[in-house]
Amino acid sequence: MYTYDYLLNFTKRIFNKMGCSDEHALMASKVFLAAELRGLPSHGMIRIKDYFQLWEAERINTTPDIKIVHEKSSTAVVDGDRAIGMIAATRSMEIAIEKAKNAGTGWVSTRNSNHFGIAGYYAMMALKHDMIGLTMTNANPLVAPTFSVSRLLGTNPVAVAVPANEQPPFVADFATTPIARGKLAVAEKKGEKTLRGYVQDENGNPSDDPSILKRGGSMLTLGGDYKHGSHKGYCMSAIVDIFSAVLSGANFGPFVPPSVAYLPVLDKKVGEGTGHFFGAMRIDAFQEAEEFKAQMDRWIETFRAAKSATGNPEVVIPGDPERICEERIRKEGINVLPAIMQDLKEIAEKLGVEFEVR
Amino acid sequence: MYTYDYLLNFTKRIFNKMGCSDEHALMASKVFLAAELRGLPSHGMIRIKDYFQLWEAERINTTPDIKIVHEKSSTAVVDGDRAIGMIAATRSMEIAIEKAKNAGTGWVSTRNSNHFGIAGYYAMMALKHDMIGLTMTNANPLVAPTFSVSRLLGTNPVAVAVPANEQPPFVADFATTPIARGKLAVAEKKGEKTLRGYVQDENGNPSDDPSILKRGGSMLTLGGDYKHGSHKGYCMSAIVDIFSAVLSGANFGPFVPPSVAYLPVLDKKVGEGTGHFFGAMRIDAFQEAEEFKAQMDRWIETFRAAKSATGNPEVVIPGDPERICEERIRKEGINVLPAIMQDLKEIAEKLGVEFEVR
Repeated sequence: MYTYDYLLNFTKRIFNKMGCSDEHALMASKVFLAAELRGLPSHGMIRIKDYFQLWEAERINTTPDIKIVHEKSSTAVVDGDRAIGMIAATRSMEIAIEKAKNAGTGWVSTRNSNHFGIAGYYAMMALKHDMIGLTMTNANPLVAPTFSVSRLLGTNPVAVAVPANEQPPFVADFATTPIARGKLAVAEKKGEKTLRGYVQDENGNPSDDPSILKRGGSMLTLGGDYKHGSHKGYCMSAIVDIFSAVLSGANFGPFVPPSVAYLPVLDKKVGEGTGHFFGAMRIDAFQEAEEFKAQMDRWIETFRAAKSATGNPEVVIPGDPERICEERIRKEGINVLPAIMQDLKEIAEKLGVEFEVR
Repeated sequence: MYTYDYLLNFTKRIFNKMGCSDEHALMASKVFLAAELRGLPSHGMIRIKDYFQLWEAERINTTPDIKIVHEKSSTAVVDGDRAIGMIAATRSMEIAIEKAKNAGTGWVSTRNSNHFGIAGYYAMMALKHDMIGLTMTNANPLVAPTFSVSRLLGTNPVAVAVPANEQPPFVADFATTPIARGKLAVAEKKGEKTLRGYVQDENGNPSDDPSILKRGGSMLTLGGDYKHGSHKGYCMSAIVDIFSAVLSGANFGPFVPPSVAYLPVLDKKVGEGTGHFFGAMRIDAFQEAEEFKAQMDRWIETFRAAKSATGNPEVVIPGDPERICEERIRKEGINVLPAIMQDLKEIAEKLGVEFEVR
């Protein structure tokens, strides 16, 4: 078990050694740690190795010149200059918030970035400004559109954070696929089959084999099959891709560069790096902020009071599970699996940073 | 069979007789006819009766004073003054487009409106301005959040329209449920069962009975069940509800007023009328419009070239089926079912408008 501060400081020093400024190293570290706190370790400490290897392969830039390349009063396109995704994304969301302060809303489409961790982190940056935050990103192509077997889309998540008053904020953060890719990897490691409706084989037949992606299979969009609305999941995923990549000039769909160094750089590119999309809306650009937040309390209370289906848990308000997890982990500490600790120790040794295996 | 012009003119005269100005009557009529052309007759001529009955019951205002009640350079809240939804919505989207001309983007949340027909119509209004259009609306509560049996959400659709160059525009328009409510009604009339994954009974048990909504049942969110990501459909639907209603001061969730006169006015209200949300983003607020549209062509061509799964049709680009349908119907004419013709004839007689049964 580690304290938050220990791992934050450790991660910061790792990124410092890779060439990041103090500001950038802290920026990135906060996102990795937020994933651990919020119970999403698949996007936490385990990913530091991916970034280390991308850096070794000179596929990311740890001294990026992140800049606005085009703008209007409520918009900007940001070029991430091949930055660590968390740094390009944090900076982009800061710009969206600044834009919103003046124009009421701010919308930033970012190119030339990399995998940015948990989408919800950036959406939540808006909350303390009494703004609604929105984040999207495209991702490595693993997902086939409805009727197809071609891997043209990523798990392309959407996150939206909305402030309330007495109630905790509403924070939705979800992939546009039935499950996250990480869950397939876990099932595969355990030697388990998955439920139907997550993946298909190379010919488009339903499959319950979590390793099918290695043999030409693909993930399905939210909805699973056409009769259950998979075309709606496909639409959502496509919207994320267009807003993140076509609007910014990043690589779209099948051309999104791999987020890990063990996969080769793609032969073809149609833009620069990975793309994200960020939005910030001042509440008081629509109505009095206190009134809105009181009404969000009522919204949340209405949904909390929903009647559970027989044998089911209570209705979940988006953001509650992660918040409750964070409260617990801040008390108990962060557990890092032995295999990940070993990886971190090796990276630390290569970079000359101290790391205590606990 | 009717021509587009005949039905547009007829509908316009019906709304004129109900008190609408020429401008407003035409505004509304265009949306009803667009639904017919685009192959969505469930939102077309059949709905005129609903509006007529709401007008008879004095539950809509045909001489509304639609106005901006709060604004910033990129935002507005519009009060629809109990207008026909199509009129409040068209006006709101026009405001979003005007805002976008100045600030790069425009975002309008609308309260005190009614059912507005097909969401895609308003999103598509942005296309001719070289803008991306976005529309959302909340709707009558029929849908239960994950784990619940309480009907707290509508089928809450999202529409996004994106211009291309040589290719037709990308137009996604989808409910946040696996199927539209209309499909349940059709199955019920045919005496057929539905697939599992659309509805549940009053205790939350899976059901294949399309009439279950009449006995305390509810529709499920996109994803169907928790293990297949229904909580993601719930998140989307909730976001639509919050943007449309909490941001504007409309009724949210279970308090959305019925869109038909045969259902009583709800006892409790938490805002004014039904809520919508509209967005317009100038392409050139992000990059050169021609460059973007050429890249959208590449995006669409990439997806068109996807390999079909065995035995499946070709991959669909969102908006293609409706566009192809419109081309056909413009040639062939609009078919109105006998029962609907009869309703229209009765309304026409009551209002003193000529209507030829064909």
